[in-house]
Amino acid sequence: MLTIIYLIAITAEAMSGALTAGRRNMDMFGVAFIAFLTALGGGTVRDILLGNYPVTWTQHSMYIYLVISAGLATMVIARFMHRLHQLFLVLDSMGLIAFTIIGCNVALGLDYDTPVVIMSGMITGIFGGILRDVLCGSTPQVLREELYASVSLLVAILYLTLQEHHADPDINLLASFSAGLLLRMAAIRWKWSLPVFSYSPERWKS
Amino acid sequence: MLTIIYLIAITAEAMSGALTAGRRNMDMFGVAFIAFLTALGGGTVRDILLGNYPVTWTQHSMYIYLVISAGLATMVIARFMHRLHQLFLVLDSMGLIAFTIIGCNVALGLDYDTPVVIMSGMITGIFGGILRDVLCGSTPQVLREELYASVSLLVAILYLTLQEHHADPDINLLASFSAGLLLRMAAIRWKWSLPVFSYSPERWKS
Amino acid sequence: MLTIIYLIAITAEAMSGALTAGRRNMDMFGVAFIAFLTALGGGTVRDILLGNYPVTWTQHSMYIYLVISAGLATMVIARFMHRLHQLFLVLDSMGLIAFTIIGCNVALGLDYDTPVVIMSGMITGIFGGILRDVLCGSTPQVLREELYASVSLLVAILYLTLQEHHADPDINLLASFSAGLLLRMAAIRWKWSLPVFSYSPERWKS
Repeated sequence: MLTIIYLIAITAEAMSGALTAGRRNMDMFGVAFIAFLTALGGGTVRDILLGNYPVTWTQHSMYIYLVISAGLATMVIARFMHRLHQLFLVLDSMGLIAFTIIGCNVALGLDYDTPVVIMSGMITGIFGGILRDVLCGSTPQVLREELYASVSLLVAILYLTLQEHHADPDINLLASFSAGLLLRMAAIRWKWSLPVFSYSPERWKS
Repeated sequence: MLTIIYLIAITAEAMSGALTAGRRNMDMFGVAFIAFLTALGGGTVRDILLGNYPVTWTQHSMYIYLVISAGLATMVIARFMHRLHQLFLVLDSMGLIAFTIIGCNVALGLDYDTPVVIMSGMITGIFGGILRDVLCGSTPQVLREELYASVSLLVAILYLTLQEHHADPDINLLASFSAGLLLRMAAIRWKWSLPVFSYSPERWKS
Repeated sequence: MLTIIYLIAITAEAMSGALTAGRRNMDMFGVAFIAFLTALGGGTVRDILLGNYPVTWTQHSMYIYLVISAGLATMVIARFMHRLHQLFLVLDSMGLIAFTIIGCNVALGLDYDTPVVIMSGMITGIFGGILRDVLCGSTPQVLREELYASVSLLVAILYLTLQEHHADPDINLLASFSAGLLLRMAAIRWKWSLPVFSYSPERWKS
């Protein structure tokens, strides 16, 4: 089940990347590149950081074809996509949660300590979006948006806690997904966000 | 022969990087750094992604000296370089093709699947320029320029197809170089480019 | 002793990263993320580049807690920090030197050639700041500031030269720190800087 959600998630992330590329008037190659980076960049950074070679997508050509196709298809269907805004928010949130859980599992399989396992989940969940924004020349949204990285953090902690208490894997997945999705939807609906740190540079020069 | 073209190519790429750094008023260190990244960054990203350790240039100090010298020399000779504009376009295109073929060969040697081999070629060819542009704070040119990444893609496919049909390696090199160079020159001459995807954000907020 | 200086240094770097994040009005997560990247990003890039797995901080959860705490604490105490400007410049310089020496030692331990050892020291010293600036959307300061990367370069050369002449390790550390700190303080005091390369794009299109 996690695999199916993963495939839906990388498709949705690829389309979100393609739209960002379209806002920057990129050409077909740029669209495919940003789609790829958004969908598979987080897992790539995780694999490199943890020394988890070979990098996952290099062993699954199907992922490569899928995200590039989804990115290019977005060029054609973008005009109809605003009607699906709500659906995309849900898919994107499910992707965030699926990526987080997969990232935790990878680090657990390599016997890393708990803080690194949590970071592995968060990196898988959010780094694709960070790379997309850096390549498109904007300050990463995730660093100043409504609860997004926080959802990833809380899902990782919940998932690991349930696992440590020997919860049934399926129930753990269901609980982590429900909690994460609820939290993210509530954060969007009521515009919850973390405290912002505003520092004016007049007083300080590093 | 590929090695000689490679050395010429990293020199040309280092000089192109130095000029970009100069446009941003960087100091000597910045110039050397951007020159290095432009010339050797693509191969570095490829090696890290494929787990091809040790990273190539760490075993060839001569490459390090060459690209840093080329970058610093550019500070002195930049004023004369506009006369060599045409020459540089040719050297840059030859570099793109040489990098692509070398990148394919590295991934082939590590037994990766064909789509990863093609991506390895393209990453080697274009990622130096992407890193240069990100570090210099602009949206990567390659994501919206005339055929550039596409030339890398087509060269990779041609090279692999000829190799699969057991073409003589020298003839394969010659054919890939000629086709790639012709395509790139034609694209510059007649301003060929890929379709651009323009998406206006009013309708959509991811 | 190098370890103690290292811990002080990553704390200072994390705080400097948090201030930069505050200038961009990032939220709590963004502050923690940029603090982490500034403090531990240089060593991470070094470890990945040299294939030095597992990446150092993944084996020391204490580093993770320290830099994230320091980053978040900065949100509270930022208003008092301008009084400590001088102290921070000294801590930042000590961090630069400690990072450089540690980076050299890591590459020496892996038997890399001297130019790579020097680059390993410099990458450890300056790449955290480069990542911080790229993620915060500005051209890296280090590429156009007063002597900073140069201090790292000279410290690396001095340290390696003394080591090659079998200097006592403690004396080597003391000498490298004193020389580096003096040079950096003098560069700040008298605004020493490297020659800048300014290149106007009218004449040239790469």
